[in-house]
Amino acid sequence: MPETPLSVAVIGAGYWGPNLARNFNAGPDWQLAAICDLDTDKATRLARSVGAVPVTGSVQELLQNPDLDAVAIATPARTHHGLATAALAAGKHVLVEKPLADSLARGEQMVAQAEAAGLVLMADHTYCYTPAVLKIRELVATGELGEILFIDSVRINLGLIQPDVDVFWDLAPHDLAILDFVLPGGLRPVRVSAHGSDPLGAGTSCVGHLVLELDTGAMAHIHVNWLSPTKIRQLVIGGSRRTLVWDDLNPQQRLSVYDRGVDLSRTARETGEEERSQSNVSYRLGDTWSPALPEHEALSAMVTEFAAAIRSRRPALTSGTAGVRVLSVLEAATHSQVSGAPVTLRPTLELESAS
Amino acid sequence: MPETPLSVAVIGAGYWGPNLARNFNAGPDWQLAAICDLDTDKATRLARSVGAVPVTGSVQELLQNPDLDAVAIATPARTHHGLATAALAAGKHVLVEKPLADSLARGEQMVAQAEAAGLVLMADHTYCYTPAVLKIRELVATGELGEILFIDSVRINLGLIQPDVDVFWDLAPHDLAILDFVLPGGLRPVRVSAHGSDPLGAGTSCVGHLVLELDTGAMAHIHVNWLSPTKIRQLVIGGSRRTLVWDDLNPQQRLSVYDRGVDLSRTARETGEEERSQSNVSYRLGDTWSPALPEHEALSAMVTEFAAAIRSRRPALTSGTAGVRVLSVLEAATHSQVSGAPVTLRPTLELESAS
Amino acid sequence: MPETPLSVAVIGAGYWGPNLARNFNAGPDWQLAAICDLDTDKATRLARSVGAVPVTGSVQELLQNPDLDAVAIATPARTHHGLATAALAAGKHVLVEKPLADSLARGEQMVAQAEAAGLVLMADHTYCYTPAVLKIRELVATGELGEILFIDSVRINLGLIQPDVDVFWDLAPHDLAILDFVLPGGLRPVRVSAHGSDPLGAGTSCVGHLVLELDTGAMAHIHVNWLSPTKIRQLVIGGSRRTLVWDDLNPQQRLSVYDRGVDLSRTARETGEEERSQSNVSYRLGDTWSPALPEHEALSAMVTEFAAAIRSRRPALTSGTAGVRVLSVLEAATHSQVSGAPVTLRPTLELESAS
Amino acid sequence: MPETPLSVAVIGAGYWGPNLARNFNAGPDWQLAAICDLDTDKATRLARSVGAVPVTGSVQELLQNPDLDAVAIATPARTHHGLATAALAAGKHVLVEKPLADSLARGEQMVAQAEAAGLVLMADHTYCYTPAVLKIRELVATGELGEILFIDSVRINLGLIQPDVDVFWDLAPHDLAILDFVLPGGLRPVRVSAHGSDPLGAGTSCVGHLVLELDTGAMAHIHVNWLSPTKIRQLVIGGSRRTLVWDDLNPQQRLSVYDRGVDLSRTARETGEEERSQSNVSYRLGDTWSPALPEHEALSAMVTEFAAAIRSRRPALTSGTAGVRVLSVLEAATHSQVSGAPVTLRPTLELESAS
Repeated sequence: MPETPLSVAVIGAGYWGPNLARNFNAGPDWQLAAICDLDTDKATRLARSVGAVPVTGSVQELLQNPDLDAVAIATPARTHHGLATAALAAGKHVLVEKPLADSLARGEQMVAQAEAAGLVLMADHTYCYTPAVLKIRELVATGELGEILFIDSVRINLGLIQPDVDVFWDLAPHDLAILDFVLPGGLRPVRVSAHGSDPLGAGTSCVGHLVLELDTGAMAHIHVNWLSPTKIRQLVIGGSRRTLVWDDLNPQQRLSVYDRGVDLSRTARETGEEERSQSNVSYRLGDTWSPALPEHEALSAMVTEFAAAIRSRRPALTSGTAGVRVLSVLEAATHSQVSGAPVTLRPTLELESAS
Repeated sequence: MPETPLSVAVIGAGYWGPNLARNFNAGPDWQLAAICDLDTDKATRLARSVGAVPVTGSVQELLQNPDLDAVAIATPARTHHGLATAALAAGKHVLVEKPLADSLARGEQMVAQAEAAGLVLMADHTYCYTPAVLKIRELVATGELGEILFIDSVRINLGLIQPDVDVFWDLAPHDLAILDFVLPGGLRPVRVSAHGSDPLGAGTSCVGHLVLELDTGAMAHIHVNWLSPTKIRQLVIGGSRRTLVWDDLNPQQRLSVYDRGVDLSRTARETGEEERSQSNVSYRLGDTWSPALPEHEALSAMVTEFAAAIRSRRPALTSGTAGVRVLSVLEAATHSQVSGAPVTLRPTLELESAS
Repeated sequence: MPETPLSVAVIGAGYWGPNLARNFNAGPDWQLAAICDLDTDKATRLARSVGAVPVTGSVQELLQNPDLDAVAIATPARTHHGLATAALAAGKHVLVEKPLADSLARGEQMVAQAEAAGLVLMADHTYCYTPAVLKIRELVATGELGEILFIDSVRINLGLIQPDVDVFWDLAPHDLAILDFVLPGGLRPVRVSAHGSDPLGAGTSCVGHLVLELDTGAMAHIHVNWLSPTKIRQLVIGGSRRTLVWDDLNPQQRLSVYDRGVDLSRTARETGEEERSQSNVSYRLGDTWSPALPEHEALSAMVTEFAAAIRSRRPALTSGTAGVRVLSVLEAATHSQVSGAPVTLRPTLELESAS
Repeated sequence: MPETPLSVAVIGAGYWGPNLARNFNAGPDWQLAAICDLDTDKATRLARSVGAVPVTGSVQELLQNPDLDAVAIATPARTHHGLATAALAAGKHVLVEKPLADSLARGEQMVAQAEAAGLVLMADHTYCYTPAVLKIRELVATGELGEILFIDSVRINLGLIQPDVDVFWDLAPHDLAILDFVLPGGLRPVRVSAHGSDPLGAGTSCVGHLVLELDTGAMAHIHVNWLSPTKIRQLVIGGSRRTLVWDDLNPQQRLSVYDRGVDLSRTARETGEEERSQSNVSYRLGDTWSPALPEHEALSAMVTEFAAAIRSRRPALTSGTAGVRVLSVLEAATHSQVSGAPVTLRPTLELESAS
């Protein structure tokens, strides 16, 4: 017997809201109950395009509706905390567009509030629900890649220079959310170094390199760039058994898994000999494999997961806590840029239990 | 009237020596006078392959030859200083394989000695003599790219893990030599940060990210990696007018020049308004252009330049001082890895005058 | 003063009709007056998605509307002739999805009828209105490529095997329409050879090679294939001055113009010497150039052209006659497959005057 | 116990001879006994580069040497027959550069003569010994691809226009030799159509399309072109189970095997129903796999095979008969060009027994 759809409102009818509205409207899990935007004309246009959905310009009014189960927030980052805490206070489950909040402290407060209220707070890390990233997560989890040796993520293109956010806060949330999703235990770097530059004098970093030292000793590097005339979306995860390359702009071969690498003889590693000769190193030059990926829309899978988390009273796959882990790196990146030195992260928060 | 060929000996018959010997032997500028290697069997095999060239196992003996004009040193880096200073002391011009020496101090000493003796000390920065790099240099010099906004260089592949050198000293000299060659005034970073990791426990960094802050405010990033199953040789130079991509493994289109970018209105930059709206930013989406490159062997052009520098009593295009600038970054990278913090470089040496 | 929009109905609410409806609805040139489909449920769904547009299941009823200026036919090819002749008889301008008809004779009859009635009959050769094809047409017309020496067009992928049409009639209309559009004077081959095969026993050719001898002596080859696991959309036009490659699946560099080629000395050609030495041949190895292309939707440009042709009482850029030229090649291909020999085309029809 | 090396002479010191000489000289199977060329200066230079090998300008003198076991002929095609028949008459085994001869009749005569004399006549189809082609042969032979549905081979670049040979005879021997090697039972087309054009007025076809109908019903297409500014070396073999793409210019992924395709339900095929609905067709969208290839030089493997064939008194893998099958297609291509129609091949020669 199919379950009664959950009722959801989309707050924010700008760039991302229409995608959320369309997906809530499409599947059996949700009933789209309202569109909310201060600009009610914009909200009305969106409401029409998905059928006859009620419109409101008032969040207060919206949250007073006792039949509403959840809200999805697709507004600028600086408004996320205020809207989410109001919704949680009104007893609504909350989905928040990335980044979860505009500061780590606010994100943590949102997670704590959701946990206390027994509500689902979910981060809209859409990329995590793409077929490619789901496959990467599986390959890492099942040990196909072995131990992770290095990670390199590149997300560059000609981008909109924004006055109130730098290239790290604009683009790196995608990379960080993906790494958090695919690494067992989530993204828990020990130290973070960020190098940003503003060669145009735009008032904010337009080119950025982020280096994360993971607790396993591996290093992850993220290159974000608004000034690149070539568009690249590429993630490499080098493992002790195999190495994976995700080229998101190559639809004919998005994922490649290389059964090639360098082996160091275990004896040499364990005995820790001072003098390592080159003979302890060997190369594997095996096949390359490109797994077929199912076709589905990431956003559709994400709204399904939102409903499933609410119904099962469990944290979403991309939980508020995942969003907080992303914020902790972004905030460290900001500090590192200011100080010019690496930032050591405090031992990771243990908030996983509820949200 | 053609000039009398200069007389040169190659010291070191290992991996690189044969390439040097073959090129000295091929053109009209040089007469290959001897091959020198402690392993005289190896030297003999090399000597035979280029005709009947004398062989010696003794550097002292070699340098006593009054008819010898120059030596080319193709031995391990730790021996460069000893061999080069002996050759300079004997009045010979010297070409040294990269890196110039195994420390900055030794490299500087070599440059000073050559200058004092009025001899040419040349760094064998072979890549600088490739048609692609010569073209890049020209495009930067003539202002085709405008101001340089960012640089990204990637040199990754499955590489030989070496016991006595890390991935920065092994691979980055190529990138640094190229940047030194194409940047007007040479490579003069203000600060250097190096992030290395040794995920296999090999005893040395196998994956490295090097970040250079240039005195212009632009940032250069270099990724070197011995553990990558995919081989990449790519340099991007982002400019205010155009952006250049050099993909050395794509023989059909090695160089691409993109007439695309972001413009920030000058007024906004000059008035330094706090609140920059997005309307000050505009995009250019122009043509892409891939210049035809002449076909020539880089090493042949390099030995020709060595002869020309000697005959004209001028520093070589890739002078000892260029080699020293490369060493200063490599040494800063080593310090940065140890301290975990950026290293500020001392005001640049002014040794350009003679060597 | 803006002109009154023309009134148009879309006949056929299947795969292509919605695209036409959306574009007629979007711009200022057209007022979408009705959707017509035997399956009125399907028509109703389409009508709703573009606003409150009237629906009908009857073509007769539709054509009786005196306010209707034009119809766009997006139904199976075997119905094109019947629908178009009825619409023309009712005094409506007609746009027909490719191919214009299911036989050359029927296509010619449609053209003749439109001409006699002074109505526009336009072929929906959508690809011709893409930025890339418009640019190719310009490059050919302005002589940038010189004389055309050879043409190679590849359109292969895993395709739907269809019971009533072979791979030539399914895929080649695109290539033929494009060639007709970019060649000065249209596509007028002297001889056509078609080689098809049906290796799966599907009852129809699934792999096809079409060879056209143009009246200039150049040869055009078209490869169409439903069985290829790799998708390729590529057109090469080799010219005496430059050669153009259009790779439609490479959004970063769709068009490349190579300033490379072979030159034969004119003297040798003119004197027609028997013994041609290789010294008469020389190579140009010039730059490659990738023109920036404007961003616009092809279908939007096409419906604009339909309106413009009606208002200016001139043939559309992709006229019914263009559609007939495409049909003449398709029909020749069918004959060539049956006979196993090349088919010589009759001197080209001269119907260009009106439609 | 290692066998005594066989003695071989290389006839022809031009473009290809040096490669043969170097490989005969390198391995344990052969002793390079002489270099023979009318231009004894050229022969002497080659002889020196491989050590102190005797030189002669006279084939007669060469063949009189009773210690000589074999000759390798690397001269222009029109001289192959004369040299090979003289060598066979003198009791020497013979390796002949492609094409085996300049006509089918001469090739057949050479095969017959070798067979009668019990000598090895081998075609130098070097590509067949590359790791990629050996792997392709294995994949076809083991049924990995299933039944072969279509073949497409492209070999295009800016090429030297030659006065006495067309683009088919110059380039297609490579493609034909490869197909002959990988198809079980060799290349045995039923019909051959060739379309050539000479758009520059060079006096010979510079662009060619060759279509072969195989006895299995599959169609093979070969595109050869001297006028293409882009260089392509690509072979696609579409199978009922998998499809293989060999891209010889992509060293990072030369071979790709796609587990994708179209299935037609067997029932439909067997019952041969008139009306096939689309529901009988299904698509497989499986993984892609790129097998690792060993690194070895093709020419080295080929000279080893030449020795092995002689010692085992068996035909070489690329036998004279294989060369004759290639010639039969080339000659049919020439006839097809002249007549403008397909050429039906006579039932295949059965000469496989000895050479």
